[in-house]
Amino acid sequence: MKRPLLHPAPDELKLESILYALADPVRLEIVRRLAGGDCPLKCSAAAPQHLPKSTMSHHFQILREAGLISSERRGTEVVNTLRLAEIDQRFPGVLGTILTAAKPLECPDAKPST
Amino acid sequence: MKRPLLHPAPDELKLESILYALADPVRLEIVRRLAGGDCPLKCSAAAPQHLPKSTMSHHFQILREAGLISSERRGTEVVNTLRLAEIDQRFPGVLGTILTAAKPLECPDAKPST
Repeated sequence: MKRPLLHPAPDELKLESILYALADPVRLEIVRRLAGGDCPLKCSAAAPQHLPKSTMSHHFQILREAGLISSERRGTEVVNTLRLAEIDQRFPGVLGTILTAAKPLECPDAKPST
Repeated sequence: MKRPLLHPAPDELKLESILYALADPVRLEIVRRLAGGDCPLKCSAAAPQHLPKSTMSHHFQILREAGLISSERRGTEVVNTLRLAEIDQRFPGVLGTILTAAKPLECPDAKPST
């Protein structure tokens, strides 16, 4: 049996943990993509790069434990949703201004436009 | 001769570095105090706790290299100023919303009020 996916309650959210989770370019890009989507995203769709699965799992775990995302197992996939409303209620404007300031992560596989 | 204190130019500021620098409760408190002061603060006044001098130097170095503070040697002291205007121009609203959301760090030496 798989371990349960643990999520902090809204009153357990810590500003420092949220900032730490967003201080990594890959995690910031995951959150940016989740914020831009109209619906929950599978890990495979939210992940910005072809990183090892274990690396991505670690990034999603940090985001989940900081309270930034809610993760739900559906069959073999994990579907993630941004906890934007809860975070904005606890720390007004913080996530919104960070996401506005965040540039999309450049894909290292992309060829430079000449 | 002391090593020069290096500061990134405004166009070298990185959002991830700023978030990482603010993701530590001691550094967040230093920035909160610098933002609340009307004038530059000496390290000894901006530091929230009686931490070892080497630990505090490391925290100020991370803040300086992220571009959050400007440090200037004056005699035997280093005087620090928050680079609020430059950061706000580059990443509008980010630092302001974080500082509004940040609670003052509780001093471990303080006696609980009964």
